[in-house]
Amino acid sequence: MKNGLWWEREDLCYLDGRLQFAGQDVSSLTSQTAGPLYLYSAERVTRNLRRLTDALKQTGSAHQIYYAMKANRFVPLLEMIARTGLCGVDICSPGELDRALASGFAPSQISFTGTGVSGDDLDRLLQYPDVHINCDTIGMIRRIGERKPNSSIGIRVNPAMGTGYDDSEKLIYSGGGTTKFGIYREQWPEALAMVRKYGLMVNTLHFHVGCGYLSGQLDRWENAVKACASFLKDLPDIKTVNIGGGLGLPHRKDDEPLDFGQWADILSRHIGIESPYAGLTIAVEPGDFIVKDAGMLVLTVNDVEMKRGTLFAYVNGGFNLAPEPAFYDLPCEPVACIMPAANDDPLIPVTIAGNINEALDIWAIEHPMPNLHEGDFIAFINAGGYAASMASNHCMRGAATEFLV
Amino acid sequence: MKNGLWWEREDLCYLDGRLQFAGQDVSSLTSQTAGPLYLYSAERVTRNLRRLTDALKQTGSAHQIYYAMKANRFVPLLEMIARTGLCGVDICSPGELDRALASGFAPSQISFTGTGVSGDDLDRLLQYPDVHINCDTIGMIRRIGERKPNSSIGIRVNPAMGTGYDDSEKLIYSGGGTTKFGIYREQWPEALAMVRKYGLMVNTLHFHVGCGYLSGQLDRWENAVKACASFLKDLPDIKTVNIGGGLGLPHRKDDEPLDFGQWADILSRHIGIESPYAGLTIAVEPGDFIVKDAGMLVLTVNDVEMKRGTLFAYVNGGFNLAPEPAFYDLPCEPVACIMPAANDDPLIPVTIAGNINEALDIWAIEHPMPNLHEGDFIAFINAGGYAASMASNHCMRGAATEFLV
Repeated sequence: MKNGLWWEREDLCYLDGRLQFAGQDVSSLTSQTAGPLYLYSAERVTRNLRRLTDALKQTGSAHQIYYAMKANRFVPLLEMIARTGLCGVDICSPGELDRALASGFAPSQISFTGTGVSGDDLDRLLQYPDVHINCDTIGMIRRIGERKPNSSIGIRVNPAMGTGYDDSEKLIYSGGGTTKFGIYREQWPEALAMVRKYGLMVNTLHFHVGCGYLSGQLDRWENAVKACASFLKDLPDIKTVNIGGGLGLPHRKDDEPLDFGQWADILSRHIGIESPYAGLTIAVEPGDFIVKDAGMLVLTVNDVEMKRGTLFAYVNGGFNLAPEPAFYDLPCEPVACIMPAANDDPLIPVTIAGNINEALDIWAIEHPMPNLHEGDFIAFINAGGYAASMASNHCMRGAATEFLV
Repeated sequence: MKNGLWWEREDLCYLDGRLQFAGQDVSSLTSQTAGPLYLYSAERVTRNLRRLTDALKQTGSAHQIYYAMKANRFVPLLEMIARTGLCGVDICSPGELDRALASGFAPSQISFTGTGVSGDDLDRLLQYPDVHINCDTIGMIRRIGERKPNSSIGIRVNPAMGTGYDDSEKLIYSGGGTTKFGIYREQWPEALAMVRKYGLMVNTLHFHVGCGYLSGQLDRWENAVKACASFLKDLPDIKTVNIGGGLGLPHRKDDEPLDFGQWADILSRHIGIESPYAGLTIAVEPGDFIVKDAGMLVLTVNDVEMKRGTLFAYVNGGFNLAPEPAFYDLPCEPVACIMPAANDDPLIPVTIAGNINEALDIWAIEHPMPNLHEGDFIAFINAGGYAASMASNHCMRGAATEFLV
């Protein structure tokens, strides 16, 4: 169990029993601060951007990445991403617009896709004519038309089918019941009429069908892509198909990573060079895929106690710092920062509990760990996305440090 | 449907079709600000404290309320609660200690019950000898003993049975599997030995078995109280039994409110005047019961659109402002701030969607509402507790105003 753990890779592994991340000794780095610590690796972020760029190249189409900053909006990270020149940025609120601009993205690198967007939101967004806006409702098309007729927009469509990590209902954004996102086929004629009414040009078709999909979900994802592609023939000004985000990464030992060969083939077949729509740009808006495995949350063990046969390790941070394990069934696997050298020192099942007064504030149940002591550090991997960006100050336990290596 | 709605009461009702709360016209008040608005009623908070005081009086025991500030830590609200003189305050972190003191509570009015408590946390708490501390683990007893032998403490026990709103697993804090909270019967001899080792006096027995219990859960709650009472005979210095919080309030039309007569009887029978422990003080730590129905979140309709047979109203705030509907199945019922006068104007089913880019960001599904338009206000009732205090800036949509009437 101690060698070749499923999550180990060149920049995240043990060296002489000490966890290394991004070329740093995690324990040493954590000792230099107090309280919960989010660590991010600039190199891993860049590498993920390159991996995705390579996958997009396989489609043979022109392509564009917009990093979804809702996953992680730590300013040094955003600045670093902007400097790579490998992507633009996907935003979903006026606040994110301000932060994107402040972090070094040009307006032309910014794509907005929001929901429940107000007129006031649009007034702020439209101050930057180069910021691209995708419309989630016919009402939003109308409000843009009223404010800025004859301009270019995108439309988010809903193919009424979707998929997500482990096919979890919470992570599927289209399909099953009617969801709030995008414009359905049934609304399409009305949407096109609204476009014509204001002389708008639809240069982008957008869809996003779910979060965290892996190879096992690609069949369903293909069906959704195919359904979305069927909207294209009605759009004479179309330049780009934005396939949203949702590219998953393994959260558990048995998760198969996304097969990019298959993924690129699907795109080529339905919206790329093998399709009737060859020549369009394929855009993608990954959040987690870029940052999630480039980050970890390091917590300190405050207490270790056996309660009725369950060994609890209590740490100095709770689900308010990373809500996905508690609420989305997306675990952040706990990793001991020091692993005893002896191969025959057995790992034992430990339940890792946060410091929030809620029953659901449990990081992991009976997870194999070395013998833990007060003061030990535990790294929760895959905490680079939707952790700090969704954190709260619940119980006034929200204080934490973010650090970009 | 429009008359005598289940949530209506003297200080929360329609007047000529306009929603009134705490003597204010909600629409008028909301018009004076921008963005999401949390409204709190000082009078309702005071009334809830009085209701609970009256219920405690029925036990015939001495009693003490500690308001659980994790439910709502808005400073003007805390200051107002401190000024009532009706209660102390329950805290769970050093940050909450600072805020309690800053809001006007004396150290002697403060009771701490935390989990995963570190040595650093204890160092901060023990600076105030009058702050009462309940211990959640034997390790915590030891750490207090090491720092301050011969002092008085409380012990939180876990009766291995519990209950909560709708018997939801997320809201049960003891029972079923082993939970992280408190000291189990199996650990009791070791806990007592630790107490003796440091000459500590246990003046308080604490338990908290779940959140949101109503009359339907009182049978299970009684069993838990009875199990906890069985620890008392081993505590010669006992003065107080702290029964935790968790007192529920109706979230749905069919929820029966908590029967305080029955509740007080249970306490009298097992830890009060009819029990072998007559003479002890009964302490209680309500959060929601004091503030939840004393608050609402008022949001603005940004967009109304029919999608595939579902009528969506999109509002200018999402689950990041009040996570309980999305994650705990504790709805905040949406209430139109203006109700058309005509009795025959039928309500229609409306799905109310937040402005966060997540599929689960839905406030209510096909809820009966009047015909809504852009700019209309919707009040989400029962948002006085665990809403703003758990809010995040997810998608940078966290900006909101809090206002105490």
